[in-house]
Amino acid sequence: DYPTIVMGHGGGGQLSAELVTHLFRPAFAPGDTSALTDSTVLTLPGSRIAYTTDTFVVQPLEFPGGTIGSLAVHGTVNDLAMSGARPLVLTVGFVIEEGMPMAQLARIVHDMARAAREAGVRIVCGDTKVVERGHGDGVYINTSGIGVLDDDVHIGPDRATVGDVVLVSGSIGDHGMAIMSQREGLEFETTIVSDSAALHTLVHALRAAVPDVHVLRDPTRGGVATSLNEIAADANVGIMLEERALPIRPAVRAACEVLGLDPLFVANEGKLLAIVPADAANTALSALRAHALGVDAAIIGEVVADHPGMLVARTGLGARRVITTPIGEQLPRIC
Amino acid sequence: DYPTIVMGHGGGGQLSAELVTHLFRPAFAPGDTSALTDSTVLTLPGSRIAYTTDTFVVQPLEFPGGTIGSLAVHGTVNDLAMSGARPLVLTVGFVIEEGMPMAQLARIVHDMARAAREAGVRIVCGDTKVVERGHGDGVYINTSGIGVLDDDVHIGPDRATVGDVVLVSGSIGDHGMAIMSQREGLEFETTIVSDSAALHTLVHALRAAVPDVHVLRDPTRGGVATSLNEIAADANVGIMLEERALPIRPAVRAACEVLGLDPLFVANEGKLLAIVPADAANTALSALRAHALGVDAAIIGEVVADHPGMLVARTGLGARRVITTPIGEQLPRIC
Ligand SMILES: Nc1ncnc2c1ncn2[C@@H]1O[C@H](COP(=O)(O)OP(=O)(O)OP(=O)(O)O)[C@@H](O)[C@H]1O
Ligand SMILES: Nc1ncnc2c1ncn2[C@@H]1O[C@H](COP(=O)(O)OP(=O)(O)OP(=O)(O)O)[C@@H](O)[C@H]1O
Ligand SMILES: [Mg+2]
Ligand SMILES: [Mg+2]
Ligand SMILES: [Mg+2]
Ligand SMILES: [Mg+2]
Ligand SMILES: [Mg+2]
Ligand SMILES: [Mg+2]
Repeated sequence: DYPTIVMGHGGGGQLSAELVTHLFRPAFAPGDTSALTDSTVLTLPGSRIAYTTDTFVVQPLEFPGGTIGSLAVHGTVNDLAMSGARPLVLTVGFVIEEGMPMAQLARIVHDMARAAREAGVRIVCGDTKVVERGHGDGVYINTSGIGVLDDDVHIGPDRATVGDVVLVSGSIGDHGMAIMSQREGLEFETTIVSDSAALHTLVHALRAAVPDVHVLRDPTRGGVATSLNEIAADANVGIMLEERALPIRPAVRAACEVLGLDPLFVANEGKLLAIVPADAANTALSALRAHALGVDAAIIGEVVADHPGMLVARTGLGARRVITTPIGEQLPRIC
Repeated sequence: DYPTIVMGHGGGGQLSAELVTHLFRPAFAPGDTSALTDSTVLTLPGSRIAYTTDTFVVQPLEFPGGTIGSLAVHGTVNDLAMSGARPLVLTVGFVIEEGMPMAQLARIVHDMARAAREAGVRIVCGDTKVVERGHGDGVYINTSGIGVLDDDVHIGPDRATVGDVVLVSGSIGDHGMAIMSQREGLEFETTIVSDSAALHTLVHALRAAVPDVHVLRDPTRGGVATSLNEIAADANVGIMLEERALPIRPAVRAACEVLGLDPLFVANEGKLLAIVPADAANTALSALRAHALGVDAAIIGEVVADHPGMLVARTGLGARRVITTPIGEQLPRIC
């Protein structure tokens, strides 16, 4: 329907999904109708692995709580972790704009190396291209990653089952609003810090307590609302969200109000959504809260038989509203 | 030494190597002094794999003999093949510029899908980002890839041994000059076609005939001269090149003359260099020539004890000249 690419095709919302569904998937994986997941599970001779990729184009390149370098590590580690894999190795691909200050590139590279070291993943190969001034934006970084999967791990969006409980590992909207408040020069900018973090140890802790986790997802571009909509569609179940239960920092809420944004649609880079059987919900909550990256974890909803494929929120006043995926995006170049 | 990034940092020459040696490697793989190879060999629980990545920023996006899409498949398939691996799966990462015509994107995506299908590799996951007009150039494509390696395969630059013979699988400089003649609008442009091709079946045929292939390399950015210099340095051997033996198409030779370029430094995307024991040289040559992608294969040199670390060419007149790696690059945005 669109004769040219618009920013929204990269926003993680409906336009993004349409581009993947109508162009990339039919071309690259004709006939494949399986659910789209954060990483792909492959069986190599002798081992089961998870494999994924992401490119990062965030602006500014350095922001409170991280840089494009650490973000590129965390993003790919998290997509591996969301399939239950233990992240092992990464590749890196740099597209650098002519004229980029070497000192800034070095800061980003070292932040990236630190993030990889802390996450226990090795960067095993890379590629470096340079484009002329005016054809880039400092640096774009692609990472791909491989993780190893135990045989008994089966986590996927289609496993969401009526009666299951939905948890989030902490406050939502921090990454997106940290970036936006930098860009807009909002006065509270200094109080909002990106949540960018590697979540694989949190997943490990959760799975140790609740082996049968049904679904894991990191709600990045498009936020919690988009991720839950995708899961509802993939599993053909309804999801009911308890709006009051959502952990949101006051500064994030304030920034969202100023900019007219809904924190449900704002990107996170260090949070996960977990869907678990109802009888494991409290165990899951305790396991998340016992981990440094999950202290603000909360139960935020449940999987229901009503309104299959749809996400519905119960508001503070007891009303219900359908929460759809945004067409394009509210916040460009957030990751 | 450079306060900012210059185009040459992406050219595959000395500046590229310095960026990797002084910035990326110390940060990402401190203490690792192994030779830099096209792909990294990893031992996962139960399997041995090759893993690699490349980003493609070629201009124009569509050129005689291919598009950025097929190039992105061939490049990564070839880096896997150069380690002796059987390429299995790819990831793709798109950075698309706002305003890119959807029809052109579709052509590129379908060309990419065709290349993957023909090479027998599956594209298993991807990512799509959009950047504002003026921050890209149509589309940049990253691919990463995994291949499976037999236990007995040990191919690497450090295996080049005095007495070994150097072969090239066909004419050199075709890809780079196909791109350049498009850009410069040279009159012979229509006669030069990129050699972009997947080389894994050629490698398979070569290894079937000569199991103990010592070194394989696809001479992409920086051309044959840069690849042979790197191998000479890694193995600490000399390489003597027979200049008259190099297969060069007349149109490529003519275009190089017009633009003042040396075909030895021009990029190839469907050629390989092979270094094999002397007693296997003729078998290797026959095996290459028996394959559609190797009909113009030639023996072009030998590994020598003299001038370790250096590439020397014997010219048509019997003189010798040292061939160094260019500092920056002659041809930007060629791949
Ligand atoms: N940013 C980077 N970080 C880590 N390693 C890198 C980086 N860029 C390149 N390398 C490493 O440097 C070596 C040379 O890379 P290069 O991209 O020149 O090889 P290639 O992919 O075979 O060539 P081409 O990119 O022209 O196809 C490889 O071992 C690669 O892994
Ligand atoms: N160009 C593409 N080709 C093939 N598949 C794609 C492409 N772009 C995205 N996909 C697939 O679409 C699904 C959603 O991708 P998306 O990038 O939104 O997920 P994510 O990486 O978890 O999120 P984010 O990029 O915000 O971190 C994934 O299964 C991904 O493999
Ligand atoms: Mg994800
Ligand atoms: Mg991701
Ligand atoms: Mg490369
Ligand atoms: Mg190579
Ligand atoms: Mg390459
Ligand atoms: Mg992605």
